[in-house]
Amino acid sequence: MSLQSIKYKRGSLEILDQLLLPVVSKYVTVRGVEDGWKVINKMQVRGAPAIAIVGCLSLAVEIHPEVFESKKSLRQEIEGKLNYLVSARPTAVNMKISADELITLANDLTKDDAISVDDMKQKFLNATEAMLDKDISDNRAIGANGAKAILQHVAETGGAQAAGPVRVLTHCNTGSLATAGYGTALGVVRHLSELGKLEHVYCTETRPYNQGARLTAYELVHEKLPATLVLDSMVAALFRVKNVAAVVVGADRVAANGDTANKIGTYQIAVVAKHHGVPFYVAAPLTSIDLQIPSGDHIIIEVRPDREMTHVGEHRIAAPGINCWNPAFDVTPATLITGIITEHGVFEPSKLKDEITKLLQL
Amino acid sequence: MSLQSIKYKRGSLEILDQLLLPVVSKYVTVRGVEDGWKVINKMQVRGAPAIAIVGCLSLAVEIHPEVFESKKSLRQEIEGKLNYLVSARPTAVNMKISADELITLANDLTKDDAISVDDMKQKFLNATEAMLDKDISDNRAIGANGAKAILQHVAETGGAQAAGPVRVLTHCNTGSLATAGYGTALGVVRHLSELGKLEHVYCTETRPYNQGARLTAYELVHEKLPATLVLDSMVAALFRVKNVAAVVVGADRVAANGDTANKIGTYQIAVVAKHHGVPFYVAAPLTSIDLQIPSGDHIIIEVRPDREMTHVGEHRIAAPGINCWNPAFDVTPATLITGIITEHGVFEPSKLKDEITKLLQL
Repeated sequence: MSLQSIKYKRGSLEILDQLLLPVVSKYVTVRGVEDGWKVINKMQVRGAPAIAIVGCLSLAVEIHPEVFESKKSLRQEIEGKLNYLVSARPTAVNMKISADELITLANDLTKDDAISVDDMKQKFLNATEAMLDKDISDNRAIGANGAKAILQHVAETGGAQAAGPVRVLTHCNTGSLATAGYGTALGVVRHLSELGKLEHVYCTETRPYNQGARLTAYELVHEKLPATLVLDSMVAALFRVKNVAAVVVGADRVAANGDTANKIGTYQIAVVAKHHGVPFYVAAPLTSIDLQIPSGDHIIIEVRPDREMTHVGEHRIAAPGINCWNPAFDVTPATLITGIITEHGVFEPSKLKDEITKLLQL
Repeated sequence: MSLQSIKYKRGSLEILDQLLLPVVSKYVTVRGVEDGWKVINKMQVRGAPAIAIVGCLSLAVEIHPEVFESKKSLRQEIEGKLNYLVSARPTAVNMKISADELITLANDLTKDDAISVDDMKQKFLNATEAMLDKDISDNRAIGANGAKAILQHVAETGGAQAAGPVRVLTHCNTGSLATAGYGTALGVVRHLSELGKLEHVYCTETRPYNQGARLTAYELVHEKLPATLVLDSMVAALFRVKNVAAVVVGADRVAANGDTANKIGTYQIAVVAKHHGVPFYVAAPLTSIDLQIPSGDHIIIEVRPDREMTHVGEHRIAAPGINCWNPAFDVTPATLITGIITEHGVFEPSKLKDEITKLLQL
């Protein structure tokens, strides 16, 4: 089974400490909101969906054994502690969205006279746990949809791999270590493997934080998938000598026209894939698709500190005094994207807006 | 003036210790062949032309104060010590070629009865020193030819930079730290700067050995050139947002049809340059052009140890157990190359063989 970065059962929560990876694999027990705040703040857990879910579950394990005198006191505890959790990483918008949803739920339950304080607690715990389950089930749907699309594309274009398993390339980390479990782009890779259709997966190092070398490689080794690490500079050479059937990457944000902001280096891989005729897929849950943004031109790219590029830990790897350009993301234009893989299906970028609008109206 | 990695005057030789760069800049005195062997073997000096020149000059400083009883004893010393120097890095073919040339010279001088033992020593020292001078003057010619070609291309295509200084990108290290001085591709950058036509130079990190971040960045900081380090994954994003006028890279080997083997990542940059309409130049002295090889298909690519990718010094940066693919070079097809810059001019790849053949017949 896929790597578990979040181990939860009612009343108990443990997370895999990502600060110690890939060298040490150690789970940290999260006993309540205080611990939850710390693991988020110290980045022992990372990835927007994972942060939100760990935050909410840390409240669930804290509330679980408690007895509340009134619905009002339960509501106050929920609201206060969720707002406290949001403060652990204020830029992680998913935690804020999840907190708002749960606070709205708590308010609604408080107003409903038919519900007892115990019922309210149970319903709150259920709602929190449903977030974990939904993230994983959405990822599993993305995995299945993406694997099917890749295999269909290969079958239609009838390459050397038409009948057999395929080789794919992924970038950055989009797996169990960035989500509640299974992963988005890495979920597609996992599903190909479950189908017996994964010949090999190549993962890029993903400088400057090396999420590919540290985290994706860790997941692939953990699950004994046939995998090889390449440097970010090697993708073109790889496409020339290995028969790579598809690229699948994640997304930080997809605009209405399909333009996709993702980890720096994604755009370069898309250009290189186009040159070599390799289909290029973006795996993104609906929550990452922002129809309010007409195109990628409206996405502001965060430029991060030089030190991420000039040092590995305390070790300096660049000449003192050199200027650096360190954009965290880039934007891949929709024209370079073969399909956007969601939990509801795979869409051509040009049809994305209409399809998603239809889905949201259902 | 450009960084001096080799400081030589008759009787005295110092080299910049590249093992300590970029953190410490320290010159090591090379008192003779014994020291020369050590600095080559320990890789305190690197780059094929630099190795050959430091080796030969280490013999020159050893011979300089000595008095020889006979031309035969001088000849024996030259032959024995040069062969010993070749053994310091047997794969560095330039040292072997230079040694053979000097041994042939020593044999010829020994046979010529008109020449005294002192004359022979002087002529030998002159020949050794001429190697240093020729490498630098060839590089200066490459720099001038390349700068002219880039500026002419910009003028003809009339981009935003048509009148003013240009922004260029280079990969790996091809500067004073890889040659006897000035550099090949970095020589082109230097010449643009000397003309007042360099707006900015971008250098890539060049994983896994980080020659760009460590060595090229060091040279650029040293000479106060307007420069910025980018990661290997950022070239496409850079081309989108900055107005880069040209790419200029070095070459390990150029085939007769213009296909070029160079540091891993070069091919990817060429693909990305093509996509963005950025001209792509290879700077290579005639000694790097091998007309015996009809195309790049005949160039065998060295695949190097995983550890170069998984570690920075003693620091592990990749998950234990992951497979790696670590080709040291890639081959850029001639179709992606705008021009090959030599000390004799800039040639279109399709005309390279005829032009070089003509030059060699002169």
